[in-house]
Amino acid sequence: MSTNVPRINRTSPLSADEAKWTELKKAEWTDQNGTDRVWEYAARRTRKESGIDAVAIAPIIRHPKRPVETLIILQYRPPVDAFCVEFPAGLIDAGETPEQAAVRELKEETGYEGKVIDVSPTIVADPGLTNANMQMVTVEVTLGENDKEPEQHLDEGEHIERVLVPLHELYDKLKALSKEEGKIVDARLFHWALGLHWSQRLGLKNA
Amino acid sequence: MSTNVPRINRTSPLSADEAKWTELKKAEWTDQNGTDRVWEYAARRTRKESGIDAVAIAPIIRHPKRPVETLIILQYRPPVDAFCVEFPAGLIDAGETPEQAAVRELKEETGYEGKVIDVSPTIVADPGLTNANMQMVTVEVTLGENDKEPEQHLDEGEHIERVLVPLHELYDKLKALSKEEGKIVDARLFHWALGLHWSQRLGLKNA
Repeated sequence: MSTNVPRINRTSPLSADEAKWTELKKAEWTDQNGTDRVWEYAARRTRKESGIDAVAIAPIIRHPKRPVETLIILQYRPPVDAFCVEFPAGLIDAGETPEQAAVRELKEETGYEGKVIDVSPTIVADPGLTNANMQMVTVEVTLGENDKEPEQHLDEGEHIERVLVPLHELYDKLKALSKEEGKIVDARLFHWALGLHWSQRLGLKNA
Repeated sequence: MSTNVPRINRTSPLSADEAKWTELKKAEWTDQNGTDRVWEYAARRTRKESGIDAVAIAPIIRHPKRPVETLIILQYRPPVDAFCVEFPAGLIDAGETPEQAAVRELKEETGYEGKVIDVSPTIVADPGLTNANMQMVTVEVTLGENDKEPEQHLDEGEHIERVLVPLHELYDKLKALSKEEGKIVDARLFHWALGLHWSQRLGLKNA
């Protein structure tokens, strides 16, 4: 591992001709009143025949001596020039199902191997700004009492830090990472933590 | 209300010169290994001096005779050519705090008036693809037994349908809207519902 801190040297406008991974599009549409309108949005150029850009993985980690945990990752994200706190995630390769992509990405990014216990429908990350879509796959990882932390299988140049967090501490942990450590939390992960938090605060009964 | 179904007439590439609300950018950055790299991303052109693009509102609705509910909205989103299921949300106006924007947007989009009970740190919607950021504001709405559904205050051409959902039914409701009704659920809302769901499934104790 290197000790360099990643840094932005320059940001600049990107022309449509130069863009390899992303594109801007305009939708000419007719609204409910019959009025013609234009909506601008961004898209990835990498979507495969599955029609789904990406999967994210919500790990549920069970250990005989510890409370139920989840696994979050920290990685530098150039668009926001900060270390972001996220669920493991990745783009779906050609020919892969979302379940296969989830198990593969979890193993690559974190080393953990698990079993898919829930798959979301297709959901959209920010549908006013992009057409980006994804599926959220919940993966259960069952650890033995003496299991060591597994090895990551990262790509060249990929730097991902793993953090195990008990579910009942996740909301406070994400707030602390934001406030005290200057990290930026992914909105989807934060919403998952808020759901846990409010369920506990409001005393919702078991489903 | 009109009965037209919104439709896309044409989608086409958008040049940087033509784009009014969005832009593509490239970040030239140096990674942890000291290697120079380029990252492409999309940005909104509308960010104000607050530095925050948007707020979303998680309503917690209390009524003397009903279980605790939340309020979700359905609106057509041209980037995905579908009706999306989302929390109320909106861009922050110049001079507004996130709390003010949340109370204003909730009233405009749904008619409900509430009290801010929680504000998230700055979180990011999809930090591999965009720099879009937001804050999530939880707003408590306390209803009287005979309160009628309030009137919306929508902009010209805005069409937003409101749905009250008991919190303990939200996860199943979102799956049903996806599968049976062809709606697409926003990832952030779905993650909030997944958090509620797993908290209940795993029997997490009150915090």
